[in-house]
Amino acid sequence: MLGLSRRALGIAPSATLSIDARAKELRAQGMDVVGFGAGEPDFDTPEYIREAAKRAIDEGKTRYTPVAGTLSLRKKIAEKFLRDNGLSYTPDQILVSSGAKQSLFNAFSVLLNEGDEVLIPQPYWVSYPEMVKMVGGVPVFVATPAEEGFRFTAKTLEPFVTARTKALILNSPNNPNGFALSRDALEGIARLAVEKQFYVVSDEIYEKLIYDGEEHVSIASLGEDIYAQTIVVNGVSKTYAMTGWRIGYAAGPKEIIKRMSAFQSHASSNANSIAQYATEAALSGGEDYLAEMVREFDARRTLLYDLVAAAPGLSANLPKGAFYMMVNVKSAFGKSHGGKLIQSSTDFAALLLEEKHVAVVPGEAFGEPGHVRLSYATSRERIQEGIRRMAEFMGELQ
Amino acid sequence: MLGLSRRALGIAPSATLSIDARAKELRAQGMDVVGFGAGEPDFDTPEYIREAAKRAIDEGKTRYTPVAGTLSLRKKIAEKFLRDNGLSYTPDQILVSSGAKQSLFNAFSVLLNEGDEVLIPQPYWVSYPEMVKMVGGVPVFVATPAEEGFRFTAKTLEPFVTARTKALILNSPNNPNGFALSRDALEGIARLAVEKQFYVVSDEIYEKLIYDGEEHVSIASLGEDIYAQTIVVNGVSKTYAMTGWRIGYAAGPKEIIKRMSAFQSHASSNANSIAQYATEAALSGGEDYLAEMVREFDARRTLLYDLVAAAPGLSANLPKGAFYMMVNVKSAFGKSHGGKLIQSSTDFAALLLEEKHVAVVPGEAFGEPGHVRLSYATSRERIQEGIRRMAEFMGELQ
Repeated sequence: MLGLSRRALGIAPSATLSIDARAKELRAQGMDVVGFGAGEPDFDTPEYIREAAKRAIDEGKTRYTPVAGTLSLRKKIAEKFLRDNGLSYTPDQILVSSGAKQSLFNAFSVLLNEGDEVLIPQPYWVSYPEMVKMVGGVPVFVATPAEEGFRFTAKTLEPFVTARTKALILNSPNNPNGFALSRDALEGIARLAVEKQFYVVSDEIYEKLIYDGEEHVSIASLGEDIYAQTIVVNGVSKTYAMTGWRIGYAAGPKEIIKRMSAFQSHASSNANSIAQYATEAALSGGEDYLAEMVREFDARRTLLYDLVAAAPGLSANLPKGAFYMMVNVKSAFGKSHGGKLIQSSTDFAALLLEEKHVAVVPGEAFGEPGHVRLSYATSRERIQEGIRRMAEFMGELQ
Repeated sequence: MLGLSRRALGIAPSATLSIDARAKELRAQGMDVVGFGAGEPDFDTPEYIREAAKRAIDEGKTRYTPVAGTLSLRKKIAEKFLRDNGLSYTPDQILVSSGAKQSLFNAFSVLLNEGDEVLIPQPYWVSYPEMVKMVGGVPVFVATPAEEGFRFTAKTLEPFVTARTKALILNSPNNPNGFALSRDALEGIARLAVEKQFYVVSDEIYEKLIYDGEEHVSIASLGEDIYAQTIVVNGVSKTYAMTGWRIGYAAGPKEIIKRMSAFQSHASSNANSIAQYATEAALSGGEDYLAEMVREFDARRTLLYDLVAAAPGLSANLPKGAFYMMVNVKSAFGKSHGGKLIQSSTDFAALLLEEKHVAVVPGEAFGEPGHVRLSYATSRERIQEGIRRMAEFMGELQ
């Protein structure tokens, strides 16, 4: 019996892919394309981390490690959780994966049976609903208030909770909207999760990229009950400019982590050994590097916000975390550029790329139509040039 | 609703884990343990590969790559398939993963619906049935003739084919038995797969570790029909002593690889970027290194075989590939050592470790009770010492 699985056929093709491919084509033709699409820092991995990796290679640390990661790395991650998040985990409560994405996929794999529901606040990172569906779960999208920068509370979530609700995905600081949830809001969400008995999968990958004095709070730190129902996911990709190294990790109740580790043992085994040693180094220092990176992102963020606010027909909320800004482009809908009608942010993004060589990600990819996502993981000069072209584009709409 | 998924609860704990843990304890106590458990070469990753990795780090190749792997690596892999296997693939028919294990898991994820059957010749590598079950498939174990070194043909498989048969897992050269299937046998199996319309997932990770002039044949090379139904899986872990780097790859029909890539895009994204560059180097040379490694494994193989044949109560087939030997220990069943009764190869392995400090893997883990698996990825001196102790152990049975 030939033919592919329903799982395979149900995976949504990436909405960003055609824009990406076209941007690359234009670049290959010698065009000067301003790229706002990047989901990774434009900084190099810091030298102290690269040196640690090269040492690991020289020392022959190129063999299998325990599936869950080396004990020394898991101890270092436990220290990080205690220091940064007030969270106490033993090494057997920690699993190192090939990227935070794999940690999330492991979590859904051990939590979800066919038909189990997962609350996904909208807008959301593109992979959340796909992961849930890939293991048989049902994404339940929760609309959040645009007028409050998409920040939500327990009240927002409660109407969507059913007897089949198995988990909630939290992502604060947030991709794509850049908000960070307050301690108050998280306390309310924790109470709801404990009362209604569902797990929280808390993706904290943008933890360190936070601005204007906002505080990152891990929901797992808000009490014993919620600690026992939370899987915290984090990693070094965004914080240490280590996207290509693929190291993420999950922490949670021992029994859940044990099962996630067993799952990973058959799905891929341990993460790259050299990257594990590099991560150990990353977590042992880097405060200066990090402070500098956050300062730079912060400066770009306010620059981008000011430029967007001044551009005709564009608007945005000032992000408080991560390195993305959602820009409202609804004022362009129903108008034309060079005779071509714009009816969606996908139309907008495609036309902007063709006419002005500026690449942005249409909001449909995140469940947020009417917006486009701009990453400010690019230089201030490029941000200025890009928004200059977008403003020009808006001015030419008819 | 709390509680873990049936998927999570159904994963078999590793049968080798308790032996491993105990061997480590004994070593930590200062005991001289001879380890025959290793599933990885005891050689270091060759220097030309390590240097390429360090160059990649220096050149900042530390960012996201395309999910399927860099185009240059996929081109290099395509060249390898053509050169070594007579197989013609374009880069969009190739997917690079975090280890061959992930390639296999991707394959089953896109092929299997709930209840689909997968033929798994017995004995088998421990992860095959687990992977199949993890995505809802049903492992169908196919008993193979021990008297022919577990080599099988289409005739062996045919009685197990049903309307629900979706795939067959092939692993030649084989772990744990070390056999390689002949071209004749593979041609028959290909005809069966085409006639009965099921896929073949061909795990060829031990391709280069083959002895006595045996030839490795990739089943996908035996005709257009079987090419269109086969996913070939390979990697650099065993061939280039790169187990910790986690680079495997799959090749197959474009539509299947596209779906596997989409699956991987949400499950973990690209494999470690540095390891991809290291792999590109690995596939561009290393013939001398490889020839030397194969010569050494070959010498150990015949040494181990001669020693086992001379030991009282032990017997084995001479392996033709990989670096494992299954040793028949049934003659010990029903006997005692130091007053402790042996009734299974698990008992045998546990007692051998306690009494003689020799670590072997019980055959139950591979669906081959009555045997223990010895890896000869250890030095000749250690092989001699280990079998000396096993012979002593056998001589002391009552």
